[in-house]
Amino acid sequence: MGDHFALTENGITPPLRWEEPPEGPVLVLLDQTRLPQEEVELVCTDVQALVAAIRSLAVRGAPLLGLAGAYGIALAAARGYDVEDAAELLAHARPTAVNLEYGVRRAVEAYRNAAPEQAPAAALAEARQLHAQDAAASAAMAEHGERLLSELVTGGGYRILTHCNTGALVSGGNGTALGVVLATHRSGQLRRLWVDETRPMLQGARITAYEAARAGMPYTLLTDSAAGSLFTAGEVDAVLVGADRIAADGSTANKVGSYSLAVLAAYHHVPFIVVAPTTSVDLATPDGSAIEVEHRPANEVTDLAPSPLGTQAYNPAFDVTPPELITAIVTENGVVAPVTAERLAAVCG
Amino acid sequence: MGDHFALTENGITPPLRWEEPPEGPVLVLLDQTRLPQEEVELVCTDVQALVAAIRSLAVRGAPLLGLAGAYGIALAAARGYDVEDAAELLAHARPTAVNLEYGVRRAVEAYRNAAPEQAPAAALAEARQLHAQDAAASAAMAEHGERLLSELVTGGGYRILTHCNTGALVSGGNGTALGVVLATHRSGQLRRLWVDETRPMLQGARITAYEAARAGMPYTLLTDSAAGSLFTAGEVDAVLVGADRIAADGSTANKVGSYSLAVLAAYHHVPFIVVAPTTSVDLATPDGSAIEVEHRPANEVTDLAPSPLGTQAYNPAFDVTPPELITAIVTENGVVAPVTAERLAAVCG
Repeated sequence: MGDHFALTENGITPPLRWEEPPEGPVLVLLDQTRLPQEEVELVCTDVQALVAAIRSLAVRGAPLLGLAGAYGIALAAARGYDVEDAAELLAHARPTAVNLEYGVRRAVEAYRNAAPEQAPAAALAEARQLHAQDAAASAAMAEHGERLLSELVTGGGYRILTHCNTGALVSGGNGTALGVVLATHRSGQLRRLWVDETRPMLQGARITAYEAARAGMPYTLLTDSAAGSLFTAGEVDAVLVGADRIAADGSTANKVGSYSLAVLAAYHHVPFIVVAPTTSVDLATPDGSAIEVEHRPANEVTDLAPSPLGTQAYNPAFDVTPPELITAIVTENGVVAPVTAERLAAVCG
Repeated sequence: MGDHFALTENGITPPLRWEEPPEGPVLVLLDQTRLPQEEVELVCTDVQALVAAIRSLAVRGAPLLGLAGAYGIALAAARGYDVEDAAELLAHARPTAVNLEYGVRRAVEAYRNAAPEQAPAAALAEARQLHAQDAAASAAMAEHGERLLSELVTGGGYRILTHCNTGALVSGGNGTALGVVLATHRSGQLRRLWVDETRPMLQGARITAYEAARAGMPYTLLTDSAAGSLFTAGEVDAVLVGADRIAADGSTANKVGSYSLAVLAAYHHVPFIVVAPTTSVDLATPDGSAIEVEHRPANEVTDLAPSPLGTQAYNPAFDVTPPELITAIVTENGVVAPVTAERLAAVCG
């Protein structure tokens, strides 16, 4: 599979692309639920299909959800569907990542502000601009993040622990946290990438391992609960994670398990670094308690063993790390450290 | 399956039993790797088969490994194999749980101290005595543990988080941590048992859920990395875990992931309680750094997704929690709190 995909410079199949075959425009998604065994594409011709792909996690990751939202509006517009209905459906397909709403809003505003006959093209142009901006943000975060690591970690060669997947598959560029890791690898500074498997959906074991392997990084997989042992062994120089939504006070919602790593990192005096574009910052959400955390179906947890029939599961997709446990937030506009509302607002300004 | 098993009072199939069919004595094990789907028994006629069952985790859990070690010696003796060779093989089948060596040593000493014609019977009698003592220790730990909870947790009704499996399937009685939980359930004090799935071998999702379901407990399964969210939500009144080896200073080796829970519990001012018989205390091991932690094959981690070919894994079976993170150690001889070398030695005296 996969030879009909144009690969990115990383050897990674692009997670999302716009195509215009004779029968009308489509949004083509790489089905991330089937990685790494298969590279299967989903071709969306309407917003319902895209919403289903978002809910099933075929397309996932905060920055990429922003692009999916924007292109989804462009798709609805190009195919003559009701754009306001599409916006309503898409913006609430999943609740936690603010980028989804953001991407939808940008494309809808471009659509509304254009003359009717130009509106579909305006929505698409806006989606493409967001795509390019996201790629540029990746590059800027990588640069800021690499400089921050050089300041925080002495001794040469980083051993970085990461959780979930935050690379080229969640972005228009090289990603957020994993984009920084890739930059350190390319400059010869990455000693070891520790990859949390990231239950229940195993984005680490499946997707981060896939990206790390393609990039030739020295990486090692571990169960999420083995991270504590790595800290006690002194094997972690920094923890780098992404973000699904950052509240105005710096509280960061990210993949469930991030909070435990933040507590462990603080206990062991290891930097805990969030890498996210300012499109993931939501100044309208005052603090962590105001972030809606998505709870997902029990069977994502219970089907694995499988557990006894009737077993209930607690399955939040995200947790929220408070600013006092975050050493720094790396954005495309610079580094927020210490994490305060004022400094965060300043980089978003 | 299972109708030919004599169930314990909990409705749980006994994990290990000695039988004497006409063709010679055997040790019958419940294969815990196949729970909860199937109740399959393994019939061991020699020590090699028992060692294989220990390594594959068909029989597991610190107190039960002690019984397996003692009965294994009795089996070798009864069948006329070399008992010293059997002891060497069995004692080192897995390195971390001290009970295995302890059970082997007790049966070997009984064997050595008896007249030759009485020696096989003496080894079996010692194994049976250890079995009965372990059941009694379970009952005493349940009593001490329940009293401790009533002192530490106010408000009525406990929400207890546990990790791995520590119930009737690891013991001659009702177990260690899960034995305490069962006691609180029977006295109407258990509001909720939170069950960590316990990657990579899923002893929580498979075996604790099975025991909890059979006992009619209110229980909910979660991925190991979701525990942090429970703490931030204020949903955990106490963490109860078992132990594979407790060093003289109180450092406790237990299933990997226990340490992260201890750090989270300390951060959230929630009691972190170890429940273990004094047979799991090893006064000859001075501290945590002297505990040998077993590392298990990478494929226990990498096979799940599956990860890209060639993916390495870091797969320690245990981690070590230092005494300053342990609120109390509950033994059959009483509660050690605060955890100091002096107090620990006193309950073992």
